[in-house]
Amino acid sequence: MFSTRTYQERRIQLAKEVSNGVILLLGNIENPINFEHNTYPFRQDSTFLYYFGIKSPSIAAIIDIDENKEIIFGDELDMDALVWTGRQETLKEKSIKSGVQETLPFKFLENYLTNAKFAHRTIHFLPPYQSSNKILLSRVLDRHLDELNPSVDLIKAVVKQRSIKEPQEIVEIEESLRVSTEMHLLAMRMAKPGIKEYEIVNAMQKFAADQNFTFAYPPIVTIHGEILHNQFQENSLKNGDLVLNDSGAESPMGYAGDLTRTFPVSGKYNDRQKELYNIVLDAYMKARELLKPGIKFKDIHLQAAKTLVEGLRNVGLMRGNVEDAVANHAHTMFFQCGLGHMMGLDVHDMEDLGEQYVGYTEAEPKNQITFGLKSLRLGKELQTGNVLTVEPGIYIIPDLIDIWKAEKKNQEFINYDVLEEFRNFSGIRIEDNFLIEENGYRLLGPDIIRTAEDIEQYCSTNRI
Amino acid sequence: MFSTRTYQERRIQLAKEVSNGVILLLGNIENPINFEHNTYPFRQDSTFLYYFGIKSPSIAAIIDIDENKEIIFGDELDMDALVWTGRQETLKEKSIKSGVQETLPFKFLENYLTNAKFAHRTIHFLPPYQSSNKILLSRVLDRHLDELNPSVDLIKAVVKQRSIKEPQEIVEIEESLRVSTEMHLLAMRMAKPGIKEYEIVNAMQKFAADQNFTFAYPPIVTIHGEILHNQFQENSLKNGDLVLNDSGAESPMGYAGDLTRTFPVSGKYNDRQKELYNIVLDAYMKARELLKPGIKFKDIHLQAAKTLVEGLRNVGLMRGNVEDAVANHAHTMFFQCGLGHMMGLDVHDMEDLGEQYVGYTEAEPKNQITFGLKSLRLGKELQTGNVLTVEPGIYIIPDLIDIWKAEKKNQEFINYDVLEEFRNFSGIRIEDNFLIEENGYRLLGPDIIRTAEDIEQYCSTNRI
Repeated sequence: MFSTRTYQERRIQLAKEVSNGVILLLGNIENPINFEHNTYPFRQDSTFLYYFGIKSPSIAAIIDIDENKEIIFGDELDMDALVWTGRQETLKEKSIKSGVQETLPFKFLENYLTNAKFAHRTIHFLPPYQSSNKILLSRVLDRHLDELNPSVDLIKAVVKQRSIKEPQEIVEIEESLRVSTEMHLLAMRMAKPGIKEYEIVNAMQKFAADQNFTFAYPPIVTIHGEILHNQFQENSLKNGDLVLNDSGAESPMGYAGDLTRTFPVSGKYNDRQKELYNIVLDAYMKARELLKPGIKFKDIHLQAAKTLVEGLRNVGLMRGNVEDAVANHAHTMFFQCGLGHMMGLDVHDMEDLGEQYVGYTEAEPKNQITFGLKSLRLGKELQTGNVLTVEPGIYIIPDLIDIWKAEKKNQEFINYDVLEEFRNFSGIRIEDNFLIEENGYRLLGPDIIRTAEDIEQYCSTNRI
Repeated sequence: MFSTRTYQERRIQLAKEVSNGVILLLGNIENPINFEHNTYPFRQDSTFLYYFGIKSPSIAAIIDIDENKEIIFGDELDMDALVWTGRQETLKEKSIKSGVQETLPFKFLENYLTNAKFAHRTIHFLPPYQSSNKILLSRVLDRHLDELNPSVDLIKAVVKQRSIKEPQEIVEIEESLRVSTEMHLLAMRMAKPGIKEYEIVNAMQKFAADQNFTFAYPPIVTIHGEILHNQFQENSLKNGDLVLNDSGAESPMGYAGDLTRTFPVSGKYNDRQKELYNIVLDAYMKARELLKPGIKFKDIHLQAAKTLVEGLRNVGLMRGNVEDAVANHAHTMFFQCGLGHMMGLDVHDMEDLGEQYVGYTEAEPKNQITFGLKSLRLGKELQTGNVLTVEPGIYIIPDLIDIWKAEKKNQEFINYDVLEEFRNFSGIRIEDNFLIEENGYRLLGPDIIRTAEDIEQYCSTNRI
């Protein structure tokens, strides 16, 4: 936990921003796997962590702005439960550490909210993403499941606050990146012909867990980097393959790291791999140099697209005018996703609150339709204190080639004949995390090897 | 998956047993961790696995007994999704493997059920344990969340079938026990002063994962074995400690293993530890020898309690008449939980269907009140084909001593003065898994070392 004062100040700021009513923040439950008492590892809701720092399941909090009251609702263990779980810090003790003096049994929550409703006071809550909290809200607010309307004022206030990271949050993120970096170097050392993708995942998980870190998200470790959300990890590595490793650790306090490196199993990129690798690296370097307060991340995304098109033109995969190619979204044959996203207590920070609020503005809302842009989670002007990822890539997706080619889509920009030769190339991504500073940016975490030459050097001399 | 015929025959049997109406079986969803698209590892519902073997999330199945129809409801990936996830076996293909020819988009489920309802046909469903399925049932059945009444007929039919394991299920359970055994031996080799409990957990997890197995339940690896559901794993091991390791693997098809061993960090039990260890081992050996069809497991539980009392009397911790001590539940100072439970696709098999149905009969229902017996998950007569655990233990719980002592509870049977000397002893459990056979029982999985002497021998010669 951070200091008591940290949580108090965050809540004071939140109450000020929302200005009136009752703020209701829900913690998460322990989710059942295959029956009620066999549960997944508990993860507290990130916003709850941000304002209270308490990791217990099945609790909720009220910040009553009108009455200047804070209460945490939850049940202390009874003596019977203590026999099974042992002595533990009480909820009362934890609440006091977060600066909340009053705790009440969970069953009193409904009554509190009912009273507030009768007094015609607004009850602010966030969009629930766990089904258990949808049911809870339906019950305590006495509303149908389809009629739960989260508070836009509260969403905006939380996003405003969580988007600007405090220095102590940066320290936590860099801790996660320290562990994430070691995970990536371990993966590079382990990769060799015959080993399975999942063996690398398991070794990284153990490495993180031995330091009390978890995965911030299910890692992507694959020789099919072109499959953007690849969860199949049973392939054996072989010489000639590229391994795309997108993985990051989560610190005990809940902060994420999110790194991607793409490296050759053989220890050497072949010519084609190195050519495309250097195009992605070029797009990455040029994109990060643009990071600063005031610039729209969508513009950096589009600039990265142009850099990619230029490079792809040089190797004969694309052709024609670069500006026109990007304007026509021709680059999305190779770069189907977004350049990056906010990161913090969530790897896609605050995604539960809505991408429109986190990554866009009312004046320039998210493009929900266009292939490519609809996958860009962050478009708006950057601010000092934002933490985000930059992650350009080139992905050769056979199914996509077939569809576009049949439609003769963007054939003035895409050289389909050459592309067929790359059909089974797979994919490349390079990803790091950055803090926006007053005069530009700062790379977060260790400056892990990134050039093709450095990676070849590391892989070929450090293989286990 | 097992053969298509296996699933077909299981469903035919189920339909016959339930006799009429529409059986609705729900799969599980991918549960969000901290936002919708960051999810826990998917685990299919066990009953769904049993009747269909399909591991995809967000599907449901209908077995329409009246109309002799089987349908799986779920959505195929569209082209857009394929770009992100790659080509995968379709739901249609998977369904055919389980012998179901018809698949429909998920949205048609509600309509199907509404029609069945209008025709006054019974819709049978099981008790939902995941909140998402509570919401789903409420929606597709158009019933309030508090008014979802699972079908007792269906519960009984499923329990009847799943309680008798097929030979191919035994093979799967033994596969899990093969991996579980290796996990336990690894833990014994790793344990040494200075190592943390969680390092052992992490190593076991990696070992299982490298063979494509998972944990069947969150493992208990602790130097405080007296805390029955101990999840705190940050203690460092030191000489003199006993490590209680209760952990088991789950096979790719979903079958559990559930083993416990308790071993000394130093490689040698001290005299007191060996004394109590041998009492538990005696209770374990005598209990397993009683296993056979027709005997009530509750009687074996009480017999184990008597063996424990006899042993505890010999070392001076208890006194008085053994029968009277057990009749007065005096043994629950040391043995607070049940002797065992059914095991299969769930580590506590079918616990989601209700312990009363799985472990008891209407004639002799579960004792929900008495300390000790209320934690006994299985009480009824054993049948050929049952798979269950036998897991006696001795747990010295300081809080429980204080409470009972203050109440002078069972002081005619408990020697509180001697007990105070054992106050910080911790806990011991020995657990294995058994198949009930016509003439008795069979120990499942490898016959992993169990006597104090064998464990000392192994620990002292194999430490890493």
